[in-house]
Amino acid sequence: MKTYAAYQAMVEEALPRQLASLGSIPEPLHQAMAYSLEAGGKRLRPVLLLAACDMAGGSLEEAMPFACALEMIHTYSLIHDDLPAMDNDDLRRGRPTNHKVFGEAMAILAGDGLLSAAGELMLSAAVRMDDQRGVRAAEAILRRAGVTGMVAGQTMDVTGEGSEPTIEKVSYIHLHKTADLLTAPIEAGLLLAGASGEQVRAGTEFGQRLGLAFQMVDDVLDVQGDMAVLGKTTGKDAEQGKLTWVSVRELDGAREDARAQVALAVKALNQLDMDTNFLKTLAQSTLERVQ
Amino acid sequence: MKTYAAYQAMVEEALPRQLASLGSIPEPLHQAMAYSLEAGGKRLRPVLLLAACDMAGGSLEEAMPFACALEMIHTYSLIHDDLPAMDNDDLRRGRPTNHKVFGEAMAILAGDGLLSAAGELMLSAAVRMDDQRGVRAAEAILRRAGVTGMVAGQTMDVTGEGSEPTIEKVSYIHLHKTADLLTAPIEAGLLLAGASGEQVRAGTEFGQRLGLAFQMVDDVLDVQGDMAVLGKTTGKDAEQGKLTWVSVRELDGAREDARAQVALAVKALNQLDMDTNFLKTLAQSTLERVQ
Repeated sequence: MKTYAAYQAMVEEALPRQLASLGSIPEPLHQAMAYSLEAGGKRLRPVLLLAACDMAGGSLEEAMPFACALEMIHTYSLIHDDLPAMDNDDLRRGRPTNHKVFGEAMAILAGDGLLSAAGELMLSAAVRMDDQRGVRAAEAILRRAGVTGMVAGQTMDVTGEGSEPTIEKVSYIHLHKTADLLTAPIEAGLLLAGASGEQVRAGTEFGQRLGLAFQMVDDVLDVQGDMAVLGKTTGKDAEQGKLTWVSVRELDGAREDARAQVALAVKALNQLDMDTNFLKTLAQSTLERVQ
Repeated sequence: MKTYAAYQAMVEEALPRQLASLGSIPEPLHQAMAYSLEAGGKRLRPVLLLAACDMAGGSLEEAMPFACALEMIHTYSLIHDDLPAMDNDDLRRGRPTNHKVFGEAMAILAGDGLLSAAGELMLSAAVRMDDQRGVRAAEAILRRAGVTGMVAGQTMDVTGEGSEPTIEKVSYIHLHKTADLLTAPIEAGLLLAGASGEQVRAGTEFGQRLGLAFQMVDDVLDVQGDMAVLGKTTGKDAEQGKLTWVSVRELDGAREDARAQVALAVKALNQLDMDTNFLKTLAQSTLERVQ
């Protein structure tokens, strides 16, 4: 196992190479795709995939196209989510959003392009394998990113704005909008390493719990960060009428639930006969920001 | 081999079933996706895939998820293309466009959802096969739909608007925006039937020639249809400053080039030791509208 920084550096190095492997992309499209792909943050999803694969004895080289594909899917979802018709954000990680720089038409195409590129990268890698591991990993990733996964969560997030928050609605949104794309790397990483069905199930549970905790913490930070800076309890989420965990459980309830989810995530890892320290530490560090 | 109408009917029947096979899609997302998917026209792309697979002795049942996936990709591209930031169309095949009915946010998500669903359907089918045919077919389809294929063509179409038309620019746009998604079904259909590399290459050439002829005819009709109706030579393409085959070769040149491409398409089919009558008739019928 490597450190988080080492996996992250591998991803940073591989992303432009994987994009270039697709062939000749027209310059305006390549620029718009690369702008958002390079503006990446912690590369959490690809790092999770590499770590899960590594932990189960798989090959990092084989896993890399899938890791980069996942980051491309995450990036496309941010570009489309920032569009004026969606969340209408002008800034993302301190830089102007994609449509602010390249216009709405190119932002839509850059998102479409990144999702297509993700599929293509995984399929090219799967064609080169002589067994079903690549197809199964690609299937898991596209399913979790698709119409019963991330896109389903986005839909309920958008259509739920301003409606009465309930535990059921917010759970659905968090599970699909956020947790599915944190579960996909664990599932795919383990599948690529040839893990058993039982191991994949335990990893999947870990991913879902981690994802829920992650989003609960984000919801807390949206309010807490604002309180610290502005001295008021209404964050951007509340202003937009977003359904958040804080809106159904208040700040203390959300913090408590995040802690409980992390405990369950760690418990799921105990079912795996592998060195799970990397994932345990990562899950626990999720809570540090709201302690 | 079956008739066009028979293949088309099979596709119409399969589309809702394939969509339902993905699991529980949230109602607002399912509605928006189904609205555009049901408003389908001739189902040319899936019919081509079924016919190519059938012609080479493959299984139509195995081919169906790939045929439906291709129609979903075509449909997503139309939904996104009609958006205000892109071509800003209010009507498509006589019905209000997706964003006119469901709003822009849902239209973006419906497009994202259809592309994701296409990938997921193909991968689920590929997992069920015990060889590489499914992965190779899925790879061909995603590559032709992606950042060196259809999305590349769309990009140059959007960024080229109003610029000086040249044969090179228009050829690039037509080859990628249109011909790639008519080549993909032939390529994938043959791959699913286990055709040889040589056969796939001949089929690919047919698809590209057919696609170019198809778009040239469309460009002619945009002007000719308008002349017939309004007595003027400026169609919607010219108004938008679109780069078309007519803009570089005039009406007569475009008609001539379309005929030449159909002849080359038919010639490519002669390399195949199969019953190619279905595809030959289809290619020749392309010209009927502008004769």
